[in-house]
Amino acid sequence: MSSIPIPAGSLFGVDNLPYGVFSTPDSAPRVGVRVGDSVVDLSRIFPGDDVFAAPSLNAFMAQGRPRWDETRSALVELVRRGVADDAVFPVPEVRLHLPIEVADYVDFYASEHHAANLGRLFRPQNPEPLLPNWKHLPVGYHGRSGTVVVSGVDVVRPCGQRKGPNDAAPVFGPTVRLDIEAELGFVVGVGSAMGARIGPDEFADHCFGAVVLNDWSARDIQAWEYVPLGPNLGKSFATSVSPWVVPLAALDAARIATPLQCPEPLPYLRGEQQWGLDIELEVEWNGQLVSRPPYAQMYWSPAQMLAHLTVNGAATRTGDLLGSGTVSGPGVRQRGAFIEMTWGGAKPVRIGDAHRTFVEDGDEIAISATAPGPHGTRIGFGEVRTRILPATGEP
Amino acid sequence: MSSIPIPAGSLFGVDNLPYGVFSTPDSAPRVGVRVGDSVVDLSRIFPGDDVFAAPSLNAFMAQGRPRWDETRSALVELVRRGVADDAVFPVPEVRLHLPIEVADYVDFYASEHHAANLGRLFRPQNPEPLLPNWKHLPVGYHGRSGTVVVSGVDVVRPCGQRKGPNDAAPVFGPTVRLDIEAELGFVVGVGSAMGARIGPDEFADHCFGAVVLNDWSARDIQAWEYVPLGPNLGKSFATSVSPWVVPLAALDAARIATPLQCPEPLPYLRGEQQWGLDIELEVEWNGQLVSRPPYAQMYWSPAQMLAHLTVNGAATRTGDLLGSGTVSGPGVRQRGAFIEMTWGGAKPVRIGDAHRTFVEDGDEIAISATAPGPHGTRIGFGEVRTRILPATGEP
Repeated sequence: MSSIPIPAGSLFGVDNLPYGVFSTPDSAPRVGVRVGDSVVDLSRIFPGDDVFAAPSLNAFMAQGRPRWDETRSALVELVRRGVADDAVFPVPEVRLHLPIEVADYVDFYASEHHAANLGRLFRPQNPEPLLPNWKHLPVGYHGRSGTVVVSGVDVVRPCGQRKGPNDAAPVFGPTVRLDIEAELGFVVGVGSAMGARIGPDEFADHCFGAVVLNDWSARDIQAWEYVPLGPNLGKSFATSVSPWVVPLAALDAARIATPLQCPEPLPYLRGEQQWGLDIELEVEWNGQLVSRPPYAQMYWSPAQMLAHLTVNGAATRTGDLLGSGTVSGPGVRQRGAFIEMTWGGAKPVRIGDAHRTFVEDGDEIAISATAPGPHGTRIGFGEVRTRILPATGEP
Repeated sequence: MSSIPIPAGSLFGVDNLPYGVFSTPDSAPRVGVRVGDSVVDLSRIFPGDDVFAAPSLNAFMAQGRPRWDETRSALVELVRRGVADDAVFPVPEVRLHLPIEVADYVDFYASEHHAANLGRLFRPQNPEPLLPNWKHLPVGYHGRSGTVVVSGVDVVRPCGQRKGPNDAAPVFGPTVRLDIEAELGFVVGVGSAMGARIGPDEFADHCFGAVVLNDWSARDIQAWEYVPLGPNLGKSFATSVSPWVVPLAALDAARIATPLQCPEPLPYLRGEQQWGLDIELEVEWNGQLVSRPPYAQMYWSPAQMLAHLTVNGAATRTGDLLGSGTVSGPGVRQRGAFIEMTWGGAKPVRIGDAHRTFVEDGDEIAISATAPGPHGTRIGFGEVRTRILPATGEP
């Protein structure tokens, strides 16, 4: 029995305590919590509790807010008192797995700066960059649950059809405009039945926590396919998430008002609670910091996203994942997608000795996020780090 | 031990043998096969085999084509020889459940007549009703897996935002343009890894079988929300499927060429095998036959849909569901959606004593399908039958 060392300034102190799924070479995946540079094995700390011996967080997440709060309190106490040595593993010695079994994955489009930048790029003839519905509802679409992967899983450059405006016919081949979207992902713990709605002030009863998410996008494939039913193969090849799920309770100190919403949203999108989040993302391209997207600037809150998703009576399930959409701020170095940062490829950025527009084979992208903690500290989401491998297969 | 009666002309003879999941008041859901007007309990016929004691077909479907074929041969033999009386239940005495645990649900748009009709309705100013990508790839989008329900589950009229072209602002309330889409759904039995492609001639190794599918659509909600990321709340409230999964092998006699595809598709969409299907759907509105959509007219085959879905390296899983999109033929009474049949509500149809455009509360919609069997017989999909209940909840 010994206390777990927490280095000074650690982003994983007792105010954070994110959950994940880990394994060691001689044991199966199970639930752990990160403390400092260690993983605490919850299946050993709570040996009678099956939910922590599971290979995903879903069973624990399904137990609901009172159980989440009680576990969090117990963990704070345990970290203070110390835990058995055989329940503690150094982070570099474990393998981290996809922490949740994803049910439905819905990706939103909640940043006004991102939506306006894409409007200016794709519809330059329009004086108003936002489409008419954008300020009335959090626009979103369903993505592919089966290709959500964890940080560290390499992504192969996808192939597909693309057709430039001057091409006579589409061609097939590897995407030449592979992009990232730096997002947060919100995980549903407790679902809702068909016909039930989740109001904006019921968010904390349903949302378990948040991850960092990279919504890989092949812009050329997407541009050719997406009318009229939205993105499909331009996105469906992979979505990468960070291995640690930061509990919603750990984000209390980050809660702020969203930017002013004008026109006022319809009543079902209005709540008393503030669910804007003062979280700062960081995007690294081959080790070089290229952007700091501010989540505080997001127009629609995650509570509004979930309220909108269920207002038609759609059921939700444990493991549903809500992507925020690209987080972009007003500054060039606050943009969360390379298509915005390089203005459609017209303004390359300098990465080391090279000028880059889109992602090249062998590139490594890491997105991380931090938030204010309750005592002037900061807490971290860890990172989602992915390497891009060359396309495979014949046309 | 007795033989199972098969009425003359039954759509559920030995050439069909569709699988489903059923329960009785005193027993849990398990796998059965339909023979005539009976359900044969496969968990009793094959007592050592756990896959048939499961509450979904997924475990059986994951076993693959050789196992499916072997089981089908064994069932044909059993039906001929007779089975134990306690393994046979009359269809009216069982409850039928959702037969598969849906992994990802992707809905396509494979009917040229449907796509062209919607183009004429929504873009009347365009001389060409199809969008430029339509004849180059099977357009599709991801739908909501968690709201796929079985025949017999009532659907509550969804609420949402809508905004007419002359409205100053969107309003919230129950949809006033609730529509159906008569489709087939193809179920993936054996999935594929990330990075692997499923060629059009590998379809039968991966596709387990097919169901009838009703892709409920709130046209007013959809029209307001769907730009630029596609349908979301206009569709996500419910998708209904028939309880019997017709094995792909039972559709051998229905296989035909698709309509001529011009321009020739890219190589990854070309196969040697014919996967057009001569299946006739029927749509009943409150008991009155209103349409006979011909699947034979579908431009893209399901094998091409699956090939397209995986060409970017997207993984597939047991339980993935591929909707065909609305099945519509050239005739008015061959259209599979009411928005087409009533030309956007401008040409009501007579249902009993009433003139109808879209679906009203209390309406009951039933969609069924039949296909040619191998010996001049016909086989049936059964039906997906749904009643619409009034909207609930306050704005």
